[in-house]
Amino acid sequence: MYGVFASVIVQLAEQHGEPYQSFPVDMMRYGAGGTGGSGSLCGALNGAAALFGLFAQSEEQTKQFISELFLWYEQKELPAFVPRKPILDVEVPLSVSDSVLCHVSVTRWAETSGYKAFSKPRKERCRRLTADTAKRAVEILNTSLSGKYEAQMDMTGEVKACGSCHTKDSEMSNTRGTMSCGSCHFSLAKDHPTVQSG
Amino acid sequence: MYGVFASVIVQLAEQHGEPYQSFPVDMMRYGAGGTGGSGSLCGALNGAAALFGLFAQSEEQTKQFISELFLWYEQKELPAFVPRKPILDVEVPLSVSDSVLCHVSVTRWAETSGYKAFSKPRKERCRRLTADTAKRAVEILNTSLSGKYEAQMDMTGEVKACGSCHTKDSEMSNTRGTMSCGSCHFSLAKDHPTVQSG
Repeated sequence: MYGVFASVIVQLAEQHGEPYQSFPVDMMRYGAGGTGGSGSLCGALNGAAALFGLFAQSEEQTKQFISELFLWYEQKELPAFVPRKPILDVEVPLSVSDSVLCHVSVTRWAETSGYKAFSKPRKERCRRLTADTAKRAVEILNTSLSGKYEAQMDMTGEVKACGSCHTKDSEMSNTRGTMSCGSCHFSLAKDHPTVQSG
Repeated sequence: MYGVFASVIVQLAEQHGEPYQSFPVDMMRYGAGGTGGSGSLCGALNGAAALFGLFAQSEEQTKQFISELFLWYEQKELPAFVPRKPILDVEVPLSVSDSVLCHVSVTRWAETSGYKAFSKPRKERCRRLTADTAKRAVEILNTSLSGKYEAQMDMTGEVKACGSCHTKDSEMSNTRGTMSCGSCHFSLAKDHPTVQSG
């Protein structure tokens, strides 16, 4: 969270001074490890969403930008960014997270890469993913400011199909949101069959 | 998110002026509906975690406070708060969310109460839950400032058992976090057996 948020605010402070200079950017360190290490919302996404909250022109636009970024994060092979001088100079495999949640995103990458969730290459992966997310967030904000913003991402057919029964104005209307459904609701049964059959 | 964060910062601004007065609290509206309507991290928790990020004495303390609050939210029957003059004057049933995620928390409450996820009583429930969360966050911060803070919550035996194989320093070490496992990993198989048997 701090990585994405501070990368933008500190640069603005260097160029423009206040009010960016006195923003307590260090507060955003709370988002690390999916919020205080809880493994929930990816901190890079939380930081980008905070930037949208600060700079988007309306609450509706904030929501649109968050949706665009979250779908991008769920569906794209990441991390794409390769630093010129990496902190850890290893090849970092790409994976599709199929989730905005830290612990799911990390597990998908661990499965793809063969690395452990607390390994140094995993840290390097998250650093590069943070750079990707900051870049995409700023692209969204800049194209918006120049009047050229168009949503590029869409919910998958699966999420739309699930939503047609479960979300707003549907028959059951028993939940809400736009998160990928399958990564929790369809792919877990095989992992612990003795527990899940109950 | 805005509800919890602003309830504290605006009161501090009224009492102390700067630096609270110029904090752009409206940015925190991005956390509504589990971050921009995505249904991920509950906005009340995100707002409280941001307060911890701002006021806790260290990153380690921020993490401890977030853990305490998130476990409280997962395990307690909520909302407990009943306003003297509610916006919507209905009886609001209590439920245990077993998750820090907005859409799961809402679904648990919808199951318990019989109300829809986009109903007015559900909005009232989230308003009261926001008040509960703000209160608990401030209690944590205040007891900490007076040197009397002690963690009251603990991870469930289930989460510890899962973590012993899957998180840091374990055999598989293929994920991270402290979120309740069962609400996604053990209770979904029965809902869509035709999809999940694949």
